[in-house]
Amino acid sequence: MSNSIRNVEAKKLSLDGDLDLECGQTLSNIDIVYETYGDLNSEASNAILICHALSGNHHAAGTYDDEDRPGWWDSLIGPGKAIDTEKFFVVCPNNIGGCHGSTGPSSINKETNETYGPDFPIITVQDWVKCQSMISDSLGIKIWHAVVGGSLGGMQALEWSRLFPKRIKKAGIVAAAPKLSAQNIAFNEVARQAIINDPDFESGRYLEKNKSPKKGLGLARMIGHITYLSEEAMRSKFGRELKEDKLNFGFDAEFEIESYLRYQGDVFSESFDANTYLLMTKILDYFDPAEKFNGNLSMAFQEIEAQVMVISFSTDWRFSPDRSKEIVNALIEAKKNVSYLEIESPHGHDSFLFADKDYVNGLSSFLEN
Amino acid sequence: MSNSIRNVEAKKLSLDGDLDLECGQTLSNIDIVYETYGDLNSEASNAILICHALSGNHHAAGTYDDEDRPGWWDSLIGPGKAIDTEKFFVVCPNNIGGCHGSTGPSSINKETNETYGPDFPIITVQDWVKCQSMISDSLGIKIWHAVVGGSLGGMQALEWSRLFPKRIKKAGIVAAAPKLSAQNIAFNEVARQAIINDPDFESGRYLEKNKSPKKGLGLARMIGHITYLSEEAMRSKFGRELKEDKLNFGFDAEFEIESYLRYQGDVFSESFDANTYLLMTKILDYFDPAEKFNGNLSMAFQEIEAQVMVISFSTDWRFSPDRSKEIVNALIEAKKNVSYLEIESPHGHDSFLFADKDYVNGLSSFLEN
Repeated sequence: MSNSIRNVEAKKLSLDGDLDLECGQTLSNIDIVYETYGDLNSEASNAILICHALSGNHHAAGTYDDEDRPGWWDSLIGPGKAIDTEKFFVVCPNNIGGCHGSTGPSSINKETNETYGPDFPIITVQDWVKCQSMISDSLGIKIWHAVVGGSLGGMQALEWSRLFPKRIKKAGIVAAAPKLSAQNIAFNEVARQAIINDPDFESGRYLEKNKSPKKGLGLARMIGHITYLSEEAMRSKFGRELKEDKLNFGFDAEFEIESYLRYQGDVFSESFDANTYLLMTKILDYFDPAEKFNGNLSMAFQEIEAQVMVISFSTDWRFSPDRSKEIVNALIEAKKNVSYLEIESPHGHDSFLFADKDYVNGLSSFLEN
Repeated sequence: MSNSIRNVEAKKLSLDGDLDLECGQTLSNIDIVYETYGDLNSEASNAILICHALSGNHHAAGTYDDEDRPGWWDSLIGPGKAIDTEKFFVVCPNNIGGCHGSTGPSSINKETNETYGPDFPIITVQDWVKCQSMISDSLGIKIWHAVVGGSLGGMQALEWSRLFPKRIKKAGIVAAAPKLSAQNIAFNEVARQAIINDPDFESGRYLEKNKSPKKGLGLARMIGHITYLSEEAMRSKFGRELKEDKLNFGFDAEFEIESYLRYQGDVFSESFDANTYLLMTKILDYFDPAEKFNGNLSMAFQEIEAQVMVISFSTDWRFSPDRSKEIVNALIEAKKNVSYLEIESPHGHDSFLFADKDYVNGLSSFLEN
């Protein structure tokens, strides 16, 4: 892209302290891979933390020296973009549990010298946010100007505003929900079973056996993809178009949508770790800040001091506008500073990745004013 | 059920002729298993054909001598019910390609003395309807008082009115669509891949090898189940209830919805044939009566003479009311006799199985007046 940052480089840091997890276990020797864009000002007051979603990573924007494909949120992060790197110092870490360099299931456990694999503890959004606060300390950032994320990333931004109210000025919560619905959990469970049932999963110890449950992981990704796209987007993109002119009366992919999904599944299964995928779906399922407050979401929001913007998209059926409004209404009930933007967009849940004009303007004015 | 027909017995017939299929192949030596309820009158003018859906079969109503569980549409078929067996002679065959007694992939091909398995030809809704017309001949039914079905069954009722306009007086098309959307096809494709990827599928020759791709078939059923239930039904039935009081931070089923789906998948995979499931999803994907009329549905409906009733359900997101209305609008455009009923029901696509009062009254008055 013409206005993408060039020659981005991933950085690495090792956290000093241990991280006590919600599950009761402790994680030590944590490595974090991250990227930064723009410059930190002398007061360290212009830093924005980007939180990635299920299959995301630290490569949020720009291009590497040796690769043309820009980061996953390059449409929104860069010079003059919604999250303007000429004004802000933008930080995006790969979360722990991930598979792109930060400590996760495919890392070596330095205490045992063996790959974590299925023994990697189940992480929660709260654990991630605590870990990100340790990253903030390492980088010398006491207060984030903003924490922003879409989908599972939005849940982290919300949790930041709850857990560290003094360390965050603005929270940008995009295409998120205050907790998963039974249907959301159901889709995650089918994805997990697809992975676990793959004989190459080997109870999660596939790396030791030089295997990879690619078919199961591909299937999980196909299921996910259906929920990311709106029915409308699928219709306009694929309709009932056939790859060839006529029906072949067999089980090879013949409708365009079939080829597309198989391709997406194949590509994903080559580059993503199955144990990480399992973990990410579980993190989503567990997220429910109201749970400790007898289901009362506004009570869960009592400590929030940040200015919050919630953004949803008209055709998102994974986390629909109604789900985002649950967050907004609970913030209003708790008398917090919240604004809400509902964007007309045809792209379903994936809309948060597209630089729609209203979305860009809304987010940039929220961050800059 | 108290008002269910007792001691129902499945019957069998062998069709005399061959069936030329849309794929170009010919099916010979066709066996059909079917059930009947009520009595055929002397003019043979009170017969109603019931068409089953994807996972259905000929056991639509009543109970067997040795089993208490009633047929899949027992809520609607029986004495005094929506489809009143005191007034009508009701016939429900297991479709060819099925796995409950009619000729299908798990049958022996009488020409080769081997199980069809993956060599069973791909059938279409049109093939089914032609086969059902041969069944009608065998049973001495020249004209059906009505052909009724839900979901894929509704597509057969629609096709009956198109292909045999002189042999059908009324068509009851419930919870159906004039063709699948890209999203519908996408879900079917994921289900197929789940089955085909199961190593016990053995390229479809699992029966010869005494295997069964139960995990893949169970997964396919789990995916289907999500699309049969409304988000609302899932929420009220399961919410985010945990099986135990607390999160277990592991991958065993812990939310109620997870156990439910796993159970549904397990039960189904014990009683259904994987090749049949593949076939049924393909039959759905291929259904598109407008295709031969350049996508003009009302042109496809020109020959229809039957009185048509289309029924949809408010929370059905598999085949939503908007999809049913496409059928209605095309029938209106073709100046046909059509009525439309949209039922408020919380059960999603499965609503067509529940005896909602408005639904029962609407269907019975359509059939009886």
